[in-house]
Amino acid sequence: MTAVLVTNIGELTTNDPSSGDESELGLLHGAALMVEEGRVVWVGEATSAPAADETLDVGGAAVIPGFVDSHSHLVFAGDRAAEFAARMQGRPYSAGGIRTTVGATRAAADEELSANVARLVDEMTRQGTTTVEIKSGYGLSVLDESRSLAIARQFTDETTFLGAHVVPPEYADDASGYVELVTGAMLEAAAPYARWVDVFCEAGAFDADQARAILLAGMAAGLQPRVHANQLGPGPGVQVACEVGAASADHCTHLSSTDIDSLSSSSVVATLLPAVEFSTRSPYPEARRLLAAGVTVALASDCNPGSSYSSSMPLCIALAVREMRMSPAEALWAATAGGAAALRRDDVGHLGVGASADFTVLAAPSYIHLAYRPGVPLVSSVFAAGRRVG
Amino acid sequence: MTAVLVTNIGELTTNDPSSGDESELGLLHGAALMVEEGRVVWVGEATSAPAADETLDVGGAAVIPGFVDSHSHLVFAGDRAAEFAARMQGRPYSAGGIRTTVGATRAAADEELSANVARLVDEMTRQGTTTVEIKSGYGLSVLDESRSLAIARQFTDETTFLGAHVVPPEYADDASGYVELVTGAMLEAAAPYARWVDVFCEAGAFDADQARAILLAGMAAGLQPRVHANQLGPGPGVQVACEVGAASADHCTHLSSTDIDSLSSSSVVATLLPAVEFSTRSPYPEARRLLAAGVTVALASDCNPGSSYSSSMPLCIALAVREMRMSPAEALWAATAGGAAALRRDDVGHLGVGASADFTVLAAPSYIHLAYRPGVPLVSSVFAAGRRVG
Repeated sequence: MTAVLVTNIGELTTNDPSSGDESELGLLHGAALMVEEGRVVWVGEATSAPAADETLDVGGAAVIPGFVDSHSHLVFAGDRAAEFAARMQGRPYSAGGIRTTVGATRAAADEELSANVARLVDEMTRQGTTTVEIKSGYGLSVLDESRSLAIARQFTDETTFLGAHVVPPEYADDASGYVELVTGAMLEAAAPYARWVDVFCEAGAFDADQARAILLAGMAAGLQPRVHANQLGPGPGVQVACEVGAASADHCTHLSSTDIDSLSSSSVVATLLPAVEFSTRSPYPEARRLLAAGVTVALASDCNPGSSYSSSMPLCIALAVREMRMSPAEALWAATAGGAAALRRDDVGHLGVGASADFTVLAAPSYIHLAYRPGVPLVSSVFAAGRRVG
Repeated sequence: MTAVLVTNIGELTTNDPSSGDESELGLLHGAALMVEEGRVVWVGEATSAPAADETLDVGGAAVIPGFVDSHSHLVFAGDRAAEFAARMQGRPYSAGGIRTTVGATRAAADEELSANVARLVDEMTRQGTTTVEIKSGYGLSVLDESRSLAIARQFTDETTFLGAHVVPPEYADDASGYVELVTGAMLEAAAPYARWVDVFCEAGAFDADQARAILLAGMAAGLQPRVHANQLGPGPGVQVACEVGAASADHCTHLSSTDIDSLSSSSVVATLLPAVEFSTRSPYPEARRLLAAGVTVALASDCNPGSSYSSSMPLCIALAVREMRMSPAEALWAATAGGAAALRRDDVGHLGVGASADFTVLAAPSYIHLAYRPGVPLVSSVFAAGRRVG
């Protein structure tokens, strides 16, 4: 049982006001943290640190909790660079593009899909993400959804069954038949590999009744609900999320006052995905309205080949600050503790005593640089459960 | 004299329509390029490549010319993270913040300034930049401007004397006295270390007459002119740039129709710096108007601790596409060949025969991914004059 002291931390974000200052970030300066068996066992001023077996001196750098990216779609084949370029010339984004990736994903061998997930997870890790949720949703058949989740499960416990991403072409004239499949045989095959059930509740995808049926079926099979809600326009997604007690309503780009009221009187996290708005040239969610209403806000990448092929949580933070007027502190909290809340995890997203020792050393003196220095790779090393991974 | 063949290039951007397809990017697929003595000596289809002494197989990746970042301010001390955070809470950007950095820079030892430049140049290199222009402008005294340029010259030949960045506090009541200093003793001390002379022609900095006097004095001392023009509001900067025959008018955020006409009937490059607008939450330049008028457009980072502490040319490309509606091809051209034009260089910014072998291998099949995958570090290796540097 080796005790490792991470020390000479110029600025430590604990996300634990009882460990650091009284701000939500629980900041400490001149700090250290002790890691044993992958957990944080002590945190405080470096000068009062207990004795350790080993020491890691980070040279005055800022240390933050590993990012918790609670929304991604990494199991796919192919890319959609041409669709992206056309969109930038003025073609609007629509959910229909998902079907392009469904075709490529169904045609791909397991090894190809797995290698693509490995590449993207590695890319995320090198950018400071230590917990990632991965959805299915480009298989849309019993076999392709279950194998997508089996592949995702090799990389994370936070796997999400999203058979209800869009209605696949072969069910174009029989959406209710597809909902029956999703809630029946597909769910049965997928559930062993999934923690979560999700649905894209949106015009062009699934309506409120369909979404409710899918989420309730998933919950009956032991999965916990989360919802793609109100991305492309106003709609019932947030209401359905609140009604079923989802962990998170994701996107939240087009919210009514009623939606905000519902979120604020529930425990549903609003997960904002600003890289989508960046990559689809859409208006950004109104983070300040959500924060003012006391809603818990998370930031995630939505990494996927269509609407947001970015795996960069630092970019999400920079966009949240620039475009959604979150403070650098609110944005960092949302990308770490917020993501953990959206995944109902209390062991990640913070560096208080007892947390998993998932942390990122920045090539910067303060977390503020994540927004102040947009686009710059500022992650110098990444640790998960106390072991260096990036 | 070793001949190295870089081969298995999935997509090669040459920026030379005579080497590749007829597009401005001069694209080749399944390509190779031969490097001898730091220069490109052959480029074409991999299958018809001549014999080489060594081979570098890039595994089907995209290869692009190294970025030419024609506008940066890297010689400084301190940072302005707190000013950034306050700005994001609503305080507007003003030129006055420059004076904060002037104080820190004057107080810093040469070694500290030099180490900071080295850190930022290294950061740029790792992001694919192989040519960088570096300005003085945080010294604003004879001694501090000349030592800033002497330090910059250790890293690049593209050094720019910007004694006319702002009027320093000690000349607050005597701007014309400061212009005399800049055009006199300061220029004399700076000229041996500088290729370019620049002036911040803007309300709060220098007016048209002052700018003209400074640029003409620099030209008389053998320097070539470039201008900070029309950043914070309409003004005479572009007109002065055209009048003196500047290589580039930089920023160009607030242009009149007359300004655009003047640029289009001159050889002045319009260098756009969208990371500034991102970091100051300002409106972006109208790139499409400039392109429609036939103006040569460059993209650069303007890396500096105040208005744009980003060294990321990939971010500039992503912003140019998202926010200024440049196509991914126009943006890549502007960040490479455009930057070279802004520095009056014909040896960099392209990979035609005779060019310096400055190129970047992307972890992507196409340059389009630079915009399609914002924030993601996609640079896998970087070569300058044929040698690996990043």
